[in-house]
Amino acid sequence: MTPKPALKDLDVSLGKRIRLHRLLYRYGPANGTLLFLPIDQGLEHGPVDFFANPDSVDPAFQLRLAKEGGYSGIVFHIGLAEKYLKDFAGEVPLILKLNGKTNIPKDDYAFSPQTASVEDAVRLGADAVGYTLYVGSPAQGEDIRQFFEIREDCVRFGMPLIMWAYPRGEAIEAKGGRDSLYAVDYAARVACELGADLVKLNLPEYDEAKTKDLPKPYDQMKFSPQEAMEKVVKSAGRTLVLVSGGSKISDEDLLEKVKLSMEAGVTGLIFGRNMWQRDLDDALKLTEKIKRIMSEYSI
Amino acid sequence: MTPKPALKDLDVSLGKRIRLHRLLYRYGPANGTLLFLPIDQGLEHGPVDFFANPDSVDPAFQLRLAKEGGYSGIVFHIGLAEKYLKDFAGEVPLILKLNGKTNIPKDDYAFSPQTASVEDAVRLGADAVGYTLYVGSPAQGEDIRQFFEIREDCVRFGMPLIMWAYPRGEAIEAKGGRDSLYAVDYAARVACELGADLVKLNLPEYDEAKTKDLPKPYDQMKFSPQEAMEKVVKSAGRTLVLVSGGSKISDEDLLEKVKLSMEAGVTGLIFGRNMWQRDLDDALKLTEKIKRIMSEYSI
Amino acid sequence: MTPKPALKDLDVSLGKRIRLHRLLYRYGPANGTLLFLPIDQGLEHGPVDFFANPDSVDPAFQLRLAKEGGYSGIVFHIGLAEKYLKDFAGEVPLILKLNGKTNIPKDDYAFSPQTASVEDAVRLGADAVGYTLYVGSPAQGEDIRQFFEIREDCVRFGMPLIMWAYPRGEAIEAKGGRDSLYAVDYAARVACELGADLVKLNLPEYDEAKTKDLPKPYDQMKFSPQEAMEKVVKSAGRTLVLVSGGSKISDEDLLEKVKLSMEAGVTGLIFGRNMWQRDLDDALKLTEKIKRIMSEYSI
Amino acid sequence: MTPKPALKDLDVSLGKRIRLHRLLYRYGPANGTLLFLPIDQGLEHGPVDFFANPDSVDPAFQLRLAKEGGYSGIVFHIGLAEKYLKDFAGEVPLILKLNGKTNIPKDDYAFSPQTASVEDAVRLGADAVGYTLYVGSPAQGEDIRQFFEIREDCVRFGMPLIMWAYPRGEAIEAKGGRDSLYAVDYAARVACELGADLVKLNLPEYDEAKTKDLPKPYDQMKFSPQEAMEKVVKSAGRTLVLVSGGSKISDEDLLEKVKLSMEAGVTGLIFGRNMWQRDLDDALKLTEKIKRIMSEYSI
Amino acid sequence: MTPKPALKDLDVSLGKRIRLHRLLYRYGPANGTLLFLPIDQGLEHGPVDFFANPDSVDPAFQLRLAKEGGYSGIVFHIGLAEKYLKDFAGEVPLILKLNGKTNIPKDDYAFSPQTASVEDAVRLGADAVGYTLYVGSPAQGEDIRQFFEIREDCVRFGMPLIMWAYPRGEAIEAKGGRDSLYAVDYAARVACELGADLVKLNLPEYDEAKTKDLPKPYDQMKFSPQEAMEKVVKSAGRTLVLVSGGSKISDEDLLEKVKLSMEAGVTGLIFGRNMWQRDLDDALKLTEKIKRIMSEYSI
Repeated sequence: MTPKPALKDLDVSLGKRIRLHRLLYRYGPANGTLLFLPIDQGLEHGPVDFFANPDSVDPAFQLRLAKEGGYSGIVFHIGLAEKYLKDFAGEVPLILKLNGKTNIPKDDYAFSPQTASVEDAVRLGADAVGYTLYVGSPAQGEDIRQFFEIREDCVRFGMPLIMWAYPRGEAIEAKGGRDSLYAVDYAARVACELGADLVKLNLPEYDEAKTKDLPKPYDQMKFSPQEAMEKVVKSAGRTLVLVSGGSKISDEDLLEKVKLSMEAGVTGLIFGRNMWQRDLDDALKLTEKIKRIMSEYSI
Repeated sequence: MTPKPALKDLDVSLGKRIRLHRLLYRYGPANGTLLFLPIDQGLEHGPVDFFANPDSVDPAFQLRLAKEGGYSGIVFHIGLAEKYLKDFAGEVPLILKLNGKTNIPKDDYAFSPQTASVEDAVRLGADAVGYTLYVGSPAQGEDIRQFFEIREDCVRFGMPLIMWAYPRGEAIEAKGGRDSLYAVDYAARVACELGADLVKLNLPEYDEAKTKDLPKPYDQMKFSPQEAMEKVVKSAGRTLVLVSGGSKISDEDLLEKVKLSMEAGVTGLIFGRNMWQRDLDDALKLTEKIKRIMSEYSI
Repeated sequence: MTPKPALKDLDVSLGKRIRLHRLLYRYGPANGTLLFLPIDQGLEHGPVDFFANPDSVDPAFQLRLAKEGGYSGIVFHIGLAEKYLKDFAGEVPLILKLNGKTNIPKDDYAFSPQTASVEDAVRLGADAVGYTLYVGSPAQGEDIRQFFEIREDCVRFGMPLIMWAYPRGEAIEAKGGRDSLYAVDYAARVACELGADLVKLNLPEYDEAKTKDLPKPYDQMKFSPQEAMEKVVKSAGRTLVLVSGGSKISDEDLLEKVKLSMEAGVTGLIFGRNMWQRDLDDALKLTEKIKRIMSEYSI
Repeated sequence: MTPKPALKDLDVSLGKRIRLHRLLYRYGPANGTLLFLPIDQGLEHGPVDFFANPDSVDPAFQLRLAKEGGYSGIVFHIGLAEKYLKDFAGEVPLILKLNGKTNIPKDDYAFSPQTASVEDAVRLGADAVGYTLYVGSPAQGEDIRQFFEIREDCVRFGMPLIMWAYPRGEAIEAKGGRDSLYAVDYAARVACELGADLVKLNLPEYDEAKTKDLPKPYDQMKFSPQEAMEKVVKSAGRTLVLVSGGSKISDEDLLEKVKLSMEAGVTGLIFGRNMWQRDLDDALKLTEKIKRIMSEYSI
Repeated sequence: MTPKPALKDLDVSLGKRIRLHRLLYRYGPANGTLLFLPIDQGLEHGPVDFFANPDSVDPAFQLRLAKEGGYSGIVFHIGLAEKYLKDFAGEVPLILKLNGKTNIPKDDYAFSPQTASVEDAVRLGADAVGYTLYVGSPAQGEDIRQFFEIREDCVRFGMPLIMWAYPRGEAIEAKGGRDSLYAVDYAARVACELGADLVKLNLPEYDEAKTKDLPKPYDQMKFSPQEAMEKVVKSAGRTLVLVSGGSKISDEDLLEKVKLSMEAGVTGLIFGRNMWQRDLDDALKLTEKIKRIMSEYSI
């Protein structure tokens, strides 16, 4: 088991420390790990993701799951936060997502414009904010600049900043694709260097067919899934890593993913569709299983 | 009949609540539903829409209709508001449209630039503002950003914000077109997540020829018109839905549209050309019929 | 004779009212009509327009004409205003043009950048400002936005705002051209809806060869020149209309244009090259003839 | 000999008047004419221009020349001003260039971004600032806007503004090229109308092969070199004209250029490579000859 | 041995002087030369550069090297500075890099967006900031403008500014490539004219195959490596020159590079991969050798 950074060892400002402490030790697993429930897919993918569980179209569903399941926080865009969080105020910490887009146009030049500000997050009592950076997109000039301005506001307000570090765009697709170890590893480091406090990443995937497109020496490397993730965690350094769930997979695979991720030294998980594309009871049971695994990784 | 959100259950600021209360309970049907009269077509389409009823070129016509017909409000761009509203001040609530464009250039990359500010709306005593977002346009980066800044001003001033959520641009046309259930459903959710208080939508249309272009599972779905609208209303969630009239149709079809929409749980209607492309008496009689239907949907 | 809007009936702020009153009733014809002398062609076309009358290259020429001929005001870009107006201060009202460009590049994507601010106009004692909006240009997003910001400054300072509403760009050329009734009619309405106080327009022209390209129903319409202008004036509504002179025509045609325009309900004329592309005496005599016609349209 | 504008007749603010007076009557020829030494070629062309005289790579060379030769001022970008001017403070007036670029990319869409501000110029004790506007470039929208903002700062600080008015870009090349009378004449007028206090221009050149591309009536016109420059000076009006030296020519040609320019009514000269691409003694002797000619044009 | 500029002779503000003095005389060689350790490759190239020495992925490695080796400072992006510097506060001066990008997209139009501000640098106690300008990139308009704004903040806060002057983009590749004497020489001068205090450059390389593409007279010139660098140092003038190490080379070659650079009059070295792509002891020994050479160039 790879060690992960502990809050007490991080050099963060008081405001960030208080908010991170709340997320790490007062809500969710409360043992220094994190379990977040994201519900921003309605903007990013459209209502299509709600077909699997029609109840899930109403964010009250996810809020109940987050509260009863004891999640570290829920991830909302501004609209959902303002309209649905009231009845769960103080019970479910808010992670306010600050940029977003639809997936209707092609994403060769992927860019996600700002949808809310750090001040909005402060006003709504959020404990962290999220920002999607499309690592390696031809639009990175605009993207990195936008991230910079939000990062500075986070410094000003002591607000923890989570980067959704997503390799995306025509350039990364030509270099082995968005899920390669090369891509995810690079994304982890970008988050670290640009000043995110936490980074949300996908587990790297090995795709034989695309290895020839990878930059050296990645084109020659073989890693087990766990070794790959350990490498990524190292590249992220003192940036806490969250592993993303992605589209729905089997429960066994998901629990395996949890185990592998935690072993690799990640701080937490951010699972959306895998949790709320099923009924509440089912989701609560699965949450329980996940948290049981996470309880072994106290810090 | 699908239930719709009631103002008392919405978590809005005091300024928004007072203005929304006025619109919902002191003007128009005054039973918690809304009937708006838009007259922004002169900018969006040119004077061509006034040929059917030459009197309609003078906004005094629509103002008389709005006052005598008892509408919840009139939708104006800044120029018409400043030049024509004086004699109806306090009698007809103003919804100030904050962006617009001509339809002369192609709209493959549709974008509607800002034409007025929330401060203009406050200065003119408006009770809400309108913003057109071209959902899925390749220009969404600029559009969502512009909406964000206006939304923040609405928060600052307690001004209700209505999103004209219009799927538009080459990408949506390639995915089944702007009026598909897929497109309208997505648009409803975008409005909800980005923080609009109300959303103006078209009724989804079923076009056999284009279903093959729709993203899964929309390409396999069959909905009655009312079921389609109910789905859209659910995606909008606590965002009040207004149904747009579009170009002129027969009175029977229009009244059918009213009935269907109200049954589907929308909060109101925003009918322009269908109302003012006829003489005043005729328009007032039709208004009366519409309001009679709406009176059955008090909340 | 079509009635035109009177200042007393317009709902404008005190600052705008005082300045408009001066232009309408204290200078020029002083009977509620306007006669402006524009001299911005040096920027827009280059010194080429001064060949016909070499004296005209020196703006002192136009200032003498404006003063001795009794014009309502002179239109200058910032440079000419600052360098030449001093000796005529208080004698010739200043209309400061706030944007401009050369005609060297193609105007498929016509856009006219800002060259001066409303504050400049206030500082220089101007009584109105002018802005060129290229109606229907593919660059309208940037153009409308820029106009919006200037319009807000005009509100702040009580400064009357004249829109040069010029249909321009590849899209309008593909729809029957910049001078069609369709184009001019649309331009008039854009000025009205976007919040201009006055609008400068060309007389619509009928071009048989291009009618097939016009949007419906303009492709089927026949109008006399005066009927066409009356229609445009109606579309402009409470926006005072100024008719532009364009390139030089015969005196008979020009006086006919004056008569036709005034009959059609326009508030005034803005004639440049037709006036100063001749010697001073000649120009003063022609001015006298124009003003004699205008004197019949007091309001 | 064509008369040129005298400072006493110009309507400029007190700050501009004091600074212009210093340049015109206290430094350099000090008889109302100007002789500037520009050294911005290192940025605009690279160090290549220093090969002819290796000493010239060190700006101390040009400063010595400016001081000993008695120039009206030296033109520097911010870096050279800050690093080299100290030892000549108060001895050589500073003209701070406010925008610049390398010539590495093609200049079809020529644009010169801002490199320093008017505040920098004030802070460094400059007596004027310079701005390059690429007249007729397809990028003129951005260029004119940038110039506007700098011009407003010049008003605020009473800082004289010199426009390097350079016809440039694919559009002007298609219309007879950057050095035609058409191009230079237009550039002079642009500077005048946009509000420059002085304008730097090239002498127009007559190129038989390109006359057919010139806009009417320039394609039919014949001018002697001096007539051409007189025309340009008239188009510039009350904007003081500086003639640029361009690349190195023979001493005879240069002195002829001086004579011709002064006769044509220009206020001064701005000669760089022709002066400092030779050793100091040689340069001082030539300077002396130039100033002797200029002494005949007191005003 | 070519003389290099001494701090005492430079005309810099007190804030810059104090910070530069610390870098030149209190840390590192402390004899007026500079030895910087950059660790921004994780952002610029991805974690790929850490394969050669796996320990190097943790910035604590470089910090130990910088402290024990006695470097003049370490170059970090904001994220590494905030997360890793605490334990070395006051021991290792911080050079905060203010812009950066990934190398995933092509760099035909290379541009490096801002990632941190001068205020960030002040807040973190940095002694200088770094900015990458892609000299000659088609995106230079945006780049030079961004540099300008940062330079002004450096003036405001008395913060020394180092320009990474990198010839880059399709235009320079077409003119003999980024490493030619032409390119590096031009880059040095750009830094000087735009107002950098120091400039980081590569040693020019001679590539026979590309000389034909070089602008005149560079296409005909022969220089020894040291003569080439001396020329570049002259073009940089009073801008202190730092030579970059580039990718890893043999120790002999590196020490040769040090000797050649110092002889050519550069002020210091900025060596990254050559130092930390080896174990600590090895790196310290090599550092010692480099510093021994540098000790002969006191000023």
